Amino acid sequence: MPRPLLTHAGRPATFDVEAINERGECVPTPIAGEHPLTLYVDKREVVTLMTLGQAPEALAIGYLRNQRLVRSLDEIAAVQVDWETDSVAVTTRKGIKGLGRRMGKRTVTTGCGQGTVFGDLMDEIESIRLRDDVRLAEETLYALLDAIRHHETIYKAAGAVHGCALATNEPGASRILTFVEDVGRHNAVDAIAGQMWLEDIDGSDKIFYTTGRLTSEMVIKCAQMAIPFLVSRSGLTQMGWRIAERIGITMIGRAVGKHYLLFTGRHRFVKTAMPTMLA
Amino acid sequence: MPRPLLTHAGRPATFDVEAINERGECVPTPIAGEHPLTLYVDKREVVTLMTLGQAPEALAIGYLRNQRLVRSLDEIAAVQVDWETDSVAVTTRKGIKGLGRRMGKRTVTTGCGQGTVFGDLMDEIESIRLRDDVRLAEETLYALLDAIRHHETIYKAAGAVHGCALATNEPGASRILTFVEDVGRHNAVDAIAGQMWLEDIDGSDKIFYTTGRLTSEMVIKCAQMAIPFLVSRSGLTQMGWRIAERIGITMIGRAVGKHYLLFTGRHRFVKTAMPTMLA
Repeated sequence: MPRPLLTHAGRPATFDVEAINERGECVPTPIAGEHPLTLYVDKREVVTLMTLGQAPEALAIGYLRNQRLVRSLDEIAAVQVDWETDSVAVTTRKGIKGLGRRMGKRTVTTGCGQGTVFGDLMDEIESIRLRDDVRLAEETLYALLDAIRHHETIYKAAGAVHGCALATNEPGASRILTFVEDVGRHNAVDAIAGQMWLEDIDGSDKIFYTTGRLTSEMVIKCAQMAIPFLVSRSGLTQMGWRIAERIGITMIGRAVGKHYLLFTGRHRFVKTAMPTMLA
Repeated sequence: MPRPLLTHAGRPATFDVEAINERGECVPTPIAGEHPLTLYVDKREVVTLMTLGQAPEALAIGYLRNQRLVRSLDEIAAVQVDWETDSVAVTTRKGIKGLGRRMGKRTVTTGCGQGTVFGDLMDEIESIRLRDDVRLAEETLYALLDAIRHHETIYKAAGAVHGCALATNEPGASRILTFVEDVGRHNAVDAIAGQMWLEDIDGSDKIFYTTGRLTSEMVIKCAQMAIPFLVSRSGLTQMGWRIAERIGITMIGRAVGKHYLLFTGRHRFVKTAMPTMLA
């Protein structure tokens, strides 16, 4: 099957503005880019995303993937970003059935949502089965957190962005396969979903890391990508926890350095120091 | 004019789940509540918000205010929250003209957006004039940051929420008038907009504080409420900065303790220590 035709139109991530600090000094301050990007599918306007614009093609593909508007990469013929008009045009090979009706049902989620077909997603959750023959060792978690800490980020330069990473799960080691930052956390997740399709990466044994909170939508999107391990530097919300419990995803929050809280899916986690306590 | 009939159906803010920490100990961990709340206006479904549910009536009113669907509190006859059905029913006195058409134009903004009639908002920005006869003294800013630091918050207990406050701007002093936290930052802003209507608070000399980032939508909403001072603990994005520049709002980021960065609207800021440098 031919691959989609893609532009490669990433935007510069930061630019400098002047600010006055408490000492009265004028300091150039790097801030994160933020651009509207209107997504058209077969010339029909679908949504406008506000994005850093680091990986706009992957974002468009991942958005359509996570919204379940496209079922496989084969369906997409071309993804063309044009910053002159702040738009991305996706051309499908055979059209998307009922696109208008499906977009009409969008729900706006958790303040940090892109508007999701929420009812449909909840139905889908019931049918998700994550792999149960994979384990995450505590030392692998620590290796991941160390890799994240050393990763060069826009966040370190400018703040105001969320980061997401997809990483391997090897005995005592973890390698970052893709790392995306965006002004919107869900854009970063969607861009990773797009990258996974473009690079043909299977998520079923991987670790998904996010700097953001573990809200319902974050858990759902992770599960949709069949990823059994979800790790965050931040905390979680009630619905995030409930859905994680129901899906049985292995969810770890407050993960920084050698600290973490294992919330759900304990059966997939192997504690290196005291394994018997988690049997 | 009669006031709207209101329920008072705030939800408990946190509840405990069990987590396993890095020492293998089982620790009860408070997490923030998160509930879907579907907003109906005159029996028409408008949006589903995911919310902590601290101030659902004010949230519904503020959402309609900030979306410019309602122009004054007079237009609202009743706001009735029913958690049995996760819904809030707003009854207007005379209906909202063109509600269906106006909701159809929603755009999804910055990952942390509730979906806004973005084009319309940008048009409106051009007509916003913030008061230019008010000043914020550096010592008042420090007093605000101190008041925020001492405020009891859900964030301190459970994390995973954003907080917003409306505060007075007095010589060397600042009093928090209303403080709302929510899983979605924009919900917190909207709830404050609702509170301001309910308590008849004029924003034109007040300070708006947020724990969240200064994105385009945050700046726009603040300006819509005619508030000239916007302060955040966090950083900002490019569009947030651009819009703040255009509106001329006095925007301060990275404000913690005795540190801050003054980004825009310098003419309203009075530096106590070295006033000449900002003349």
